[in-house]
Amino acid sequence: MTSEIILLGHGSGGKLSHQLLDELIVPTLSGYTPQNQNDAAIVAQPKGRLAMTTDSYVVDPIFFPGGNIGDLAINGTVNDLAMVGARPLALSVGLILEEGLPLSDLRTILISMKAAAEEAGVVIVTGDTKVVPRGKADKIFINTSGIGVIEHTFAINGSGAKIGDQILINGPVGDHGMAVLARREGLELDSDIHSDSAPLNGLVAELLTAVGADLHVLRDPTRGGVATTLKEIALQSGVDITLNETSVPVSKAVTGACAILGLDPLFVANEGKLLAFVAPAAADAALAVMRNHPYGRSAAIIGEVTLASVGRVKVRTAIGGLRSIEMLSGEQLPRIC
Amino acid sequence: MTSEIILLGHGSGGKLSHQLLDELIVPTLSGYTPQNQNDAAIVAQPKGRLAMTTDSYVVDPIFFPGGNIGDLAINGTVNDLAMVGARPLALSVGLILEEGLPLSDLRTILISMKAAAEEAGVVIVTGDTKVVPRGKADKIFINTSGIGVIEHTFAINGSGAKIGDQILINGPVGDHGMAVLARREGLELDSDIHSDSAPLNGLVAELLTAVGADLHVLRDPTRGGVATTLKEIALQSGVDITLNETSVPVSKAVTGACAILGLDPLFVANEGKLLAFVAPAAADAALAVMRNHPYGRSAAIIGEVTLASVGRVKVRTAIGGLRSIEMLSGEQLPRIC
Repeated sequence: MTSEIILLGHGSGGKLSHQLLDELIVPTLSGYTPQNQNDAAIVAQPKGRLAMTTDSYVVDPIFFPGGNIGDLAINGTVNDLAMVGARPLALSVGLILEEGLPLSDLRTILISMKAAAEEAGVVIVTGDTKVVPRGKADKIFINTSGIGVIEHTFAINGSGAKIGDQILINGPVGDHGMAVLARREGLELDSDIHSDSAPLNGLVAELLTAVGADLHVLRDPTRGGVATTLKEIALQSGVDITLNETSVPVSKAVTGACAILGLDPLFVANEGKLLAFVAPAAADAALAVMRNHPYGRSAAIIGEVTLASVGRVKVRTAIGGLRSIEMLSGEQLPRIC
Repeated sequence: MTSEIILLGHGSGGKLSHQLLDELIVPTLSGYTPQNQNDAAIVAQPKGRLAMTTDSYVVDPIFFPGGNIGDLAINGTVNDLAMVGARPLALSVGLILEEGLPLSDLRTILISMKAAAEEAGVVIVTGDTKVVPRGKADKIFINTSGIGVIEHTFAINGSGAKIGDQILINGPVGDHGMAVLARREGLELDSDIHSDSAPLNGLVAELLTAVGADLHVLRDPTRGGVATTLKEIALQSGVDITLNETSVPVSKAVTGACAILGLDPLFVANEGKLLAFVAPAAADAALAVMRNHPYGRSAAIIGEVTLASVGRVKVRTAIGGLRSIEMLSGEQLPRIC
């Protein structure tokens, strides 16, 4: 490459664009040189219904403890496919680059994307790159869209919560949001907090094998955290939910940082966590699957579905009281993903 | 909606986000109220190989004669699927909104997206919305990703050009690029130039029916224009191409505007044009199909594949000379799509 930063010409569709694609983006993301660049990629006929999802990533800062915008974008879209019980097949990557972005930063991000895709067992099949002038974007925005195949007949979605369902989470909450916030604001914390960004498709596949039709709802509590996600599910399923605050795993570092900043860890974003609603008879089996998986060592049962109702979520507090929770009304942590 | 502009809170994942989605985005794009918002959408098992594509749209200005960033984003992704011979099935929409964007602008754009999707016969199945602070994006960026099904066994791709192939285009070149540029720069032109943004999947379906295996390459000459696109195909197929400059349809308005600005219409972006490489025996039939279609009335044969070689593109000029063309080396028209 003849420049060390992104130039407007890298988005022209001309010679500089092809150089950027052929020398950096395509070899890094796909692992081989570009031979066959067409307007769309071809994927073999899938054996089952398809799932499709999209997410744009605008996280600030683009590098944070435990990850960067690149692996976050891969893991997030892999997880959205996994949350409807699909096996991720193929991803697309849309880059919006700000003029002046160091190519070394872009390279680091692309390498992370490739590594994350490999861990998740998913292929990046197509992409697009745009460049906008300085001050018209913030370094880099990434869209990842994905398709997956649903190879079973279980119905896993947000309206499937049933009375008595036990609510499991695969580990401690709030790490991603606090890691990003601490880096962005330059907070000096006693202990490092790292993003939990991780692909959850492997864990979901094991849950499907172990408890199958007893798995009613899966959702990853990203923006808005566990509290907002539970409220969404309660409304979608028309049920009330009780969450046991003392059962929710939270690290001491996150608890401390949240206390200093006046934040509630239940509302802080996660990027490697899932909430699973499981029929009571299968809850212990599901918990065992989680705890045996690298991304579920600290899994816990944190609540249950209490009755068919209007979608209330109540938290049983440490001192035994019950308080209602609602979705965040404004902006707690902007640009967290 | 309680605000007339986009607020940071609209991207929080909380109450404002849900309000924006439930009251504006989902009803407008899908045509009905949100009942079943999950992390991924489910699409029936397709009967054939899949095509997948993605594009981010950063066009400036977001409204221009003949369209806006919304219908452009739908048509562009529909066309990328059509260019590999796929029937578009489903689209995703990823919105990155700048704080302060008027909701009325967003509404207009979403309505255009819905109308464009309906014209193309494709369904918007899933989406994502992010908000960034003022000055960290430019009004609105849109990613559209799409999947389509390939219901035939023809191989249509950029490496398929064969010696003797006739090169067809479905109408005049340069209108999109010049329409956007004129609006952006506030140029006073004698005659209005409108973007040619249009869905080409219907025209491609008719071409496939009419000439089938004789259709070797399809590509839409967007960024970089006809010249850059032909150069790409020549390199990918390992052939030389001769383009007859006087056969390329260009409106008087575009010719005039390009002359004033020192631009070559062959390098200006199109958003409703396709280049088709067709075996010589089928070229007249393909031309007839185009001219009978609303998006091909001014179709023409503009060149041919001359020999298996190293990917040169030569233009036969009006006075009979031959000049070589290369891809644009820098940035002719930034943010044209």
